[in-house]
Amino acid sequence: MSPMKVGLLGLGVVGGGTWKVLTQNAEEIARRAGRRIEVAAVAVRDIEKARRLVGDQVSVTTDGMDIVRNPDIDIVVELIGGDTLAHDLVMEAIKQGKHVVTANKALLARHGNEIFAAAHEKGVMVVFEAAVAGGIPIVKAIREGLTANRIQWLAGIINGTTNFILSEMRSRGLPFNAVLSEAQRLGYAETDPTFDIEGIDAAHKLTLLASLAFGIPVQFNKAHVEGISSLAQEDIAHAERLGYRIKLLGITRRRADGIELRVHPTLVPMECLLANVEGAMNAVLVQGDAVGPTLYYGQGAGELPTASAVIADLVDVTRLQAADPDHRVPHLAFQPDAMDDIAILPIADIQSSYYLRLRVEDRPGVLADLARILSDAGISIGSMFQEPHGTTEADIIFLSHSAREGDVDTALERIQALPFVRSPVTRLRVENLV
Amino acid sequence: MSPMKVGLLGLGVVGGGTWKVLTQNAEEIARRAGRRIEVAAVAVRDIEKARRLVGDQVSVTTDGMDIVRNPDIDIVVELIGGDTLAHDLVMEAIKQGKHVVTANKALLARHGNEIFAAAHEKGVMVVFEAAVAGGIPIVKAIREGLTANRIQWLAGIINGTTNFILSEMRSRGLPFNAVLSEAQRLGYAETDPTFDIEGIDAAHKLTLLASLAFGIPVQFNKAHVEGISSLAQEDIAHAERLGYRIKLLGITRRRADGIELRVHPTLVPMECLLANVEGAMNAVLVQGDAVGPTLYYGQGAGELPTASAVIADLVDVTRLQAADPDHRVPHLAFQPDAMDDIAILPIADIQSSYYLRLRVEDRPGVLADLARILSDAGISIGSMFQEPHGTTEADIIFLSHSAREGDVDTALERIQALPFVRSPVTRLRVENLV
Repeated sequence: MSPMKVGLLGLGVVGGGTWKVLTQNAEEIARRAGRRIEVAAVAVRDIEKARRLVGDQVSVTTDGMDIVRNPDIDIVVELIGGDTLAHDLVMEAIKQGKHVVTANKALLARHGNEIFAAAHEKGVMVVFEAAVAGGIPIVKAIREGLTANRIQWLAGIINGTTNFILSEMRSRGLPFNAVLSEAQRLGYAETDPTFDIEGIDAAHKLTLLASLAFGIPVQFNKAHVEGISSLAQEDIAHAERLGYRIKLLGITRRRADGIELRVHPTLVPMECLLANVEGAMNAVLVQGDAVGPTLYYGQGAGELPTASAVIADLVDVTRLQAADPDHRVPHLAFQPDAMDDIAILPIADIQSSYYLRLRVEDRPGVLADLARILSDAGISIGSMFQEPHGTTEADIIFLSHSAREGDVDTALERIQALPFVRSPVTRLRVENLV
Repeated sequence: MSPMKVGLLGLGVVGGGTWKVLTQNAEEIARRAGRRIEVAAVAVRDIEKARRLVGDQVSVTTDGMDIVRNPDIDIVVELIGGDTLAHDLVMEAIKQGKHVVTANKALLARHGNEIFAAAHEKGVMVVFEAAVAGGIPIVKAIREGLTANRIQWLAGIINGTTNFILSEMRSRGLPFNAVLSEAQRLGYAETDPTFDIEGIDAAHKLTLLASLAFGIPVQFNKAHVEGISSLAQEDIAHAERLGYRIKLLGITRRRADGIELRVHPTLVPMECLLANVEGAMNAVLVQGDAVGPTLYYGQGAGELPTASAVIADLVDVTRLQAADPDHRVPHLAFQPDAMDDIAILPIADIQSSYYLRLRVEDRPGVLADLARILSDAGISIGSMFQEPHGTTEADIIFLSHSAREGDVDTALERIQALPFVRSPVTRLRVENLV
């Protein structure tokens, strides 16, 4: 069979990796796909630099539109990032009847509904394994491997930068800012780290996972997002003492009244595999009603792991492009006419367990007052410990059983107003998972 | 679209689970597959018992041939087990042009080459996600998720019974026989546990994983298989002290001169996720050249997890049956005309690290003699410890660096013949993985 012709938009880290792996493993890939997959054209900013990598056999342009409108190109691979130029190029590629492979979580989390609708209309595939958790085939696992299941929830470490920072904070006892600087020096964090450390990147990915799991439209704007920049070293140490590690988790869960969609630092029991995912590694735990818990682990970013996911999608498209569109795998795992419109729950309506830390004046009656307020709000305490701070104050840590977040907020407002409470209450969520 | 009509061969644990999940999650599955998937006929031993489960709407027969020859059936699901009747029914189903879903690892590990060739010839699919690691979509991950990679090796805990036994032996300090009896009482082990405890079931699954990873024919008869029935409690304790846990691993690895294919108890570093897979859970670690390590974890057996895998295959077949056979996913991940004939290495030619334990007379010169023999054989020692046994003897434990197994055998023969060696040498393999 004649080779599949690929047009690469972008030849940065992931684009370069895709070129390298397609070249080095060309034979292995053709043995699987049944035909060769060749890069026929690339769009880049720096033509000279691109030529040094791809040589003279590949068409090189600075205008992405040259590629998406090139009639010889079968599949467009979008690796530019962002949601402006990338958006225009992907929409035009679809209009031109081309299949699209993309690693762009921001684009899909924000404009996925429009993009998938256009692709469905035109009968082309838009696939995005590389957009979530790098080389781990988690999109395929949920979309195709767990189709028998009513998925109940999933929880994932889906940002390597923050997991690296949290691992270092714990193992070396260092504060956030010190570890962030080191991560930047090592190349694990960007110069402007906001997207990673504030949980936005994780929320983009979680938004896509939630759609795949539950068959709902992408709704990034409804996600609750908290990062790790204000996480205190002492809470990591206290958590450890209680048998927990703190991870930045993306969590989405089906409730009777809606879907939870949230990214935040989370206490996870130490014996849970997720708690043992260290450094820049990613992992996603998925709970299905038939299969029970399954976990997927691997490198969530980087040149070659992400290229691995891009190329897996290229092989899938190579195979499926011959099938009629109605028999292909749906973009978001569910048929477009079978999507659900279950609401995303406001954060006040989620259910979680909670870790609460506060500093109080050390005098009789304090614990009784705190316990009564929590109990009045229907919050039941699983465990607590208290340790002196100096001679007149004490730190108290509570671990609650599952409660509605709005009720916790109400109790914390009352607690915060008590005269003997000497600090803002630190509140972290606890997920016991499986 | 009209429903897909499924014929179930067998309505035992997995067959019953498949019926239940297909019924309970019918709507969720149809939302994904684009049409309903219905059981139209079942073949069972006990018609009365089957009727109580499936009611009157489903055709029930005692003769599987009624199902595989029924023109109304689109997909045959083989859940009988064994390789006699199941073999005849699967071959006849293929001959009748039906797609086949099977959970039967013994059948495919022993007769896969014949079955896949017949299926290719006839243009039908034979899929087997449920045959390896229950509900974990590991077949799909290797076959489709990692297609970019030249896979270097994989190592898996792919038998839940033995992992349960090893977990209990370690955590409770009990000997093999005591834990086996308990596992039988709890239903984790069969009355005749040979297939599980001697590693045969794991070797069936490993044989299939090796074919998917490397594009080689199934060659169960070339696998090296050792079980856990002669594993001593004291080796589990010594391993723990050295920072390792003992797991029954299936390991397959690409070497310059061939493929390693082996199942045996293995020391795994404690910090490796695989070492932390406890109880009856399964996990497979796959190393690809682009993606690096990825791990897949979940329940490896049981009614509903295995049904989850069967149904994922049913949905795949439902989608792909409309595609022309040349554009479907190949049975063993590689195109039939692109399979490789790399040899499976004899066990003497594998490379591994080794754990050696022996009892010796406690007198000067012993350690020097042992060290010289190992060194003469080119075996380098990473660590060792010695502890007294009574007043005149000592136990010595060596951990070697990577060595050729045949060289280790030669050295052990010489060591065993030494006059001061008072016990048979215990030899276990050590894999440091990643």
